[in-house]
Amino acid sequence: MLNILWFSPCDCLPPLRAAAEQLRQKDLRISQLQAELRRPPPAPAQPPEPEARPTIYVVTPTYARLVQKAELVRLSQTLSLVPRLHWLLVEDAEGPTPLVSGLLAASGLLFTHLVVLTPKAQRLREGEPGWVHPRGVEQRNKALDWLRGRGGAVGGEKDPPPPGTQGVVYFADDDNTYSRELFEEMRWTRGVSVWPVGLVGGLRFEGPQVQDGRVVGFHTAWEPNRPFPVDMAGFAVALPLLLAKPNAQFDSTAPRGHLESSLLSHLVDPKDLEPRAANCTRVLVWHTRTEKPKMKQEEQLQRQGRGSDPAVEV
Amino acid sequence: MLNILWFSPCDCLPPLRAAAEQLRQKDLRISQLQAELRRPPPAPAQPPEPEARPTIYVVTPTYARLVQKAELVRLSQTLSLVPRLHWLLVEDAEGPTPLVSGLLAASGLLFTHLVVLTPKAQRLREGEPGWVHPRGVEQRNKALDWLRGRGGAVGGEKDPPPPGTQGVVYFADDDNTYSRELFEEMRWTRGVSVWPVGLVGGLRFEGPQVQDGRVVGFHTAWEPNRPFPVDMAGFAVALPLLLAKPNAQFDSTAPRGHLESSLLSHLVDPKDLEPRAANCTRVLVWHTRTEKPKMKQEEQLQRQGRGSDPAVEV
Repeated sequence: MLNILWFSPCDCLPPLRAAAEQLRQKDLRISQLQAELRRPPPAPAQPPEPEARPTIYVVTPTYARLVQKAELVRLSQTLSLVPRLHWLLVEDAEGPTPLVSGLLAASGLLFTHLVVLTPKAQRLREGEPGWVHPRGVEQRNKALDWLRGRGGAVGGEKDPPPPGTQGVVYFADDDNTYSRELFEEMRWTRGVSVWPVGLVGGLRFEGPQVQDGRVVGFHTAWEPNRPFPVDMAGFAVALPLLLAKPNAQFDSTAPRGHLESSLLSHLVDPKDLEPRAANCTRVLVWHTRTEKPKMKQEEQLQRQGRGSDPAVEV
Repeated sequence: MLNILWFSPCDCLPPLRAAAEQLRQKDLRISQLQAELRRPPPAPAQPPEPEARPTIYVVTPTYARLVQKAELVRLSQTLSLVPRLHWLLVEDAEGPTPLVSGLLAASGLLFTHLVVLTPKAQRLREGEPGWVHPRGVEQRNKALDWLRGRGGAVGGEKDPPPPGTQGVVYFADDDNTYSRELFEEMRWTRGVSVWPVGLVGGLRFEGPQVQDGRVVGFHTAWEPNRPFPVDMAGFAVALPLLLAKPNAQFDSTAPRGHLESSLLSHLVDPKDLEPRAANCTRVLVWHTRTEKPKMKQEEQLQRQGRGSDPAVEV
């Protein structure tokens, strides 16, 4: 047999050619597999975050008081649950305080730290009811200034949103209670969106009345004929609209209950308000108020030189 | 040339053998690459979550009132930031309410829903100060019963922790403010851990005094000689310790300010308390209280048949 093969005309060429072709195929397969391995891993199972999703600019005025840190910790933790959110925290103070600066730095949020002191003439005097001078007016206007490129940030992100930024602006006081669901309701606001607010105005809730998807009135007990009988926590404004109306701001001299109207009258006709929260049938924000803590024992201990350690931040 | 090759003794065997060896090598490489592709993707860049990490059982008594939903939304959102947490929400009611059941179902938390009505004799009468009958005693004891395998869940996870579960139990009322950092401080409690509480007892804060890593006293203005002058929000207990002392529970007849002591006296010697929060120098929980909302306008509108829509949950 061997002899015959050995001396017969060589017939190895076809198997050699076949082997070469097989080698080529396997090289191809190897390079395919290597390419597959180089491919980035699939994204984790999270909702996609398109760059186009508008940013929510949350404007929070704040002032020093015993419960300030508690309120801001609670609010910052709520905001940390919301993607694409930028917190504009505006202190009513002469300069940035260590308490607020430290809290912002530790929050993990994208933030801008602003400061403006309320002029003395507009400040509440001891014992005056809150409506004589509503708090936070200068601070909210300061945030509008920053959004419009007029600067003034003392910490965090200092550049205002670049031209063409899709966003929405919401005025969120530091004592209210916010459901995380509220923020997705307001994100795609085209002009001004509205929704009910719980536990405000002496009612279980105040809010727009909606028919056929349009706002036709307001459920409120107090001056229902105000241009916009809505609470500060009950609306959001598209950023492009605010930028297109550079004079729209809050008027610190507006009559009681007309502060929201003083901004909104520049921006929108009441019939064009965009109802949210299931046609304004769901309460997703509550106008909660935190009691002022009593410090009687603290004063007693302090007189005995045994007060709470002032080095401990509360 | 061709002729010579054609008729020379065949020398194709070595290249054929080499080709066979090359094919074998490439098959090996292909199966290696395929195995690599089958390997699970690397874990995302998150802290590892060892199964050994103890679970935090947060016990929250709650009762129906105007701010109940706001408070529970706020608290549930804080708890949602804490890994390996199990919420035991105990209603003071005759049966589970739709408000609480719905809120728990929507919370995304691991929870157990319990219900127990406070006996009439222990309920506050209109106008009585809160300390006459501290709220939540029966509800906290109900949660201890469930943890000890005595059942009673009306919703959520109904099976108690299996024997040998590593865990820690914390009593978190629904109106306080909790920093997310607090929960990691308590997670690795061996017996009973303690820390300061802000804005309580008429002071900026109350808390243990620590020397050389041990609790040597308490900063408090009110009855400093109580066995454990600590607030409900100021301690956590290891689950194995609670299970090892099956009679340890809260005593509803304990004198004012002694409710915490009525549990802790069963569990630990004050000198063995484990100080947390940087040797009790950081305030990570605040005894905030939410104002009862005024409903004067609501009552007026209701008399006119124009009250807030009762179908809207607030």
